[in-house]
Amino acid sequence: MYKIVQTQGGVCLADGFFADGVSAGLKPNGAKDMAFIYSESLCEIASVFTTNKMAAAPIIHFKSKGSFETNFVLVNSKNANAITGDAGVEDIKDILQTLSQEVHHPIMSSTGVIGVRLPKEKIIAGAKLFDLSKKEPHSAAKAIMTTDTFSKEIALRVELADGSSFNIGAMAKGAGMINPAMATMLCFITTDADVSANEMQKILNDTTAKTFNAASVDGDTSTNDTVLLLANKKSGAYNATAFHEALHTIMHFLAREMVRDGEGATKLVTYEVSGAKDDAEAEVAAKALSDSLLVKTALYGEDPNWGRIASTVGASGVACSQESLQISFEDVCVYDKGNIYFDADIEAKASLVMQRDAFTIFCDLGQGKGKFTAFGCDLGHEYVKINADYRT
Amino acid sequence: MYKIVQTQGGVCLADGFFADGVSAGLKPNGAKDMAFIYSESLCEIASVFTTNKMAAAPIIHFKSKGSFETNFVLVNSKNANAITGDAGVEDIKDILQTLSQEVHHPIMSSTGVIGVRLPKEKIIAGAKLFDLSKKEPHSAAKAIMTTDTFSKEIALRVELADGSSFNIGAMAKGAGMINPAMATMLCFITTDADVSANEMQKILNDTTAKTFNAASVDGDTSTNDTVLLLANKKSGAYNATAFHEALHTIMHFLAREMVRDGEGATKLVTYEVSGAKDDAEAEVAAKALSDSLLVKTALYGEDPNWGRIASTVGASGVACSQESLQISFEDVCVYDKGNIYFDADIEAKASLVMQRDAFTIFCDLGQGKGKFTAFGCDLGHEYVKINADYRT
Repeated sequence: MYKIVQTQGGVCLADGFFADGVSAGLKPNGAKDMAFIYSESLCEIASVFTTNKMAAAPIIHFKSKGSFETNFVLVNSKNANAITGDAGVEDIKDILQTLSQEVHHPIMSSTGVIGVRLPKEKIIAGAKLFDLSKKEPHSAAKAIMTTDTFSKEIALRVELADGSSFNIGAMAKGAGMINPAMATMLCFITTDADVSANEMQKILNDTTAKTFNAASVDGDTSTNDTVLLLANKKSGAYNATAFHEALHTIMHFLAREMVRDGEGATKLVTYEVSGAKDDAEAEVAAKALSDSLLVKTALYGEDPNWGRIASTVGASGVACSQESLQISFEDVCVYDKGNIYFDADIEAKASLVMQRDAFTIFCDLGQGKGKFTAFGCDLGHEYVKINADYRT
Repeated sequence: MYKIVQTQGGVCLADGFFADGVSAGLKPNGAKDMAFIYSESLCEIASVFTTNKMAAAPIIHFKSKGSFETNFVLVNSKNANAITGDAGVEDIKDILQTLSQEVHHPIMSSTGVIGVRLPKEKIIAGAKLFDLSKKEPHSAAKAIMTTDTFSKEIALRVELADGSSFNIGAMAKGAGMINPAMATMLCFITTDADVSANEMQKILNDTTAKTFNAASVDGDTSTNDTVLLLANKKSGAYNATAFHEALHTIMHFLAREMVRDGEGATKLVTYEVSGAKDDAEAEVAAKALSDSLLVKTALYGEDPNWGRIASTVGASGVACSQESLQISFEDVCVYDKGNIYFDADIEAKASLVMQRDAFTIFCDLGQGKGKFTAFGCDLGHEYVKINADYRT
């Protein structure tokens, strides 16, 4: 048995981790735009990166290093260092070189505009402002924001049956799930659990599939998406089941926070697809729903337009039929295997559900036992405004 | 040698075809909402339908009949007769039964709201208003519109070297490429060419892939999408190459008209992808571009944001790299194999291109000889308005 307790401290909760944000003048309004995470001892690393074939320079640089341990991550916002070619990778080496006296195998991570070289001198000057003894996780979380309207942090303490315990903390930024010119999904997780890199990587892969990869704001995939998990093992404690559950809680929370803060989003909608032929088909159907423009605009209009749900599932290519499909908005069934329940009374009840900030749409395909849960948001005028006008 | 001449007459140009639209009271404003196409002799049929597994009752009914010839198509707008189960198919049989004295194996086609039974009595009464001697193609084209802002028609006469000739005419409706609750893509093509059903079907499949299936307003696929091609052979003339070219001209024109009239669209954008590993990969990349929310909102904002183009191609999963990619807005190159040309001068030129109503974005992946051309539109406030508010 174990206990998972939510607490404060973000990426600095785990023993031996430090973090802070500074202002290096990348954001024109003087807001914080560079953050670091430092560990007083070396960390093993697990990572997940974008599948985009135009992966940004920080990702190319990280992958080129092969297997290594680190005690330092440098993050900048406002410039993604993406599609900047070899020069973008050289810029990273030059920047990290200036830190080589203090830290070991530093990692760089970036988010912001694509196709523009990093302002190297500003970043080097910014890095000189870092005070590695600072534990300011909230300041770090603020510094990595782009179009995010709030920072995203969580910290958990895991208490094991033998009295030992370990900690996991995280910060993330999202905004457009992927708006490749302004935003990106970045997530940094720190832990003092005594977990090996291999074990962490396995758990991280599994958890990413069910959390960040189940979340969609606009269905695009950025050049910079990054999840980094650093373990310095200082607690000496570990339990795989507890670690897996705590990591899932953290990443599930952050994925939902990112969608909730999606560009222009006013609603967080969960799509629980069940009864698919298998889990893979459930995932296809659930993601088709969370990505459909017609579904997203109906959500924004608070219109319980179940026909768009049915049609989107039908168009997704998974096994389904109108004779076996069931659709509910929370506990309000609107369509049940050929029976259309959609009279004025049901419509009123379904409309009430849709006026909530967050709710679940259940969709049972009646074909098998496959299931998947995806998170999405609505698409309203603000999304168009942010994405059409962002450079002006 | 042959000559293709654009002319008037829509679906009534081909010899022996008649058409008209009537008002049956389905549209609350009294606009025309039912159309027919009648041929004085029986027609062979080629058809393409939606791949949506929730295909609407008219499609289920058509497919259940196996191979047949017809001389009559009845089309209604405002109600899609989709996801209405066996009852929806029975409704069609009841309606068509009332026409059985006058016409042979009539076909029904519907577009409009999903999940509502057809107003059978109104449609039967509407069908009694049809005058089969009328040649009013424009009235028919108007009657099948939903959120379309203009009707879509074209007619071609094909003059062969031996002095013989045949005609092809068509009408279509689009709006949301697929807005499953209000719109659908329907296209009806009539010809007096002496072409066999098998040959027509082959040519129709090939042409559909390069025209309607290359067009996207919102990336969804309706429950009702239908292309019907009817040939009564009355001209006695035929030439396969000329027929293929004329059909391509017709469907290419209508596909572009549909995108130009996409819900809320202000721009018609052509994506010419070349240099892909093969044609299939070029198609994936081109369609990813025409479907990307981030690209579509940048178009609306007239922002020559080439980073979104590059990132979308990278995310589409096709073979590509920043070292071999080239991007141009018409003749303005913005990115060339690692060279970012995007200074203020180029940005100004690219912005001018984007202010046009229609333009082409060229994207060469530098991987092989695969190519594909897709059509798309921008996504602006009107799209959100139409789709969020449409039932209120």
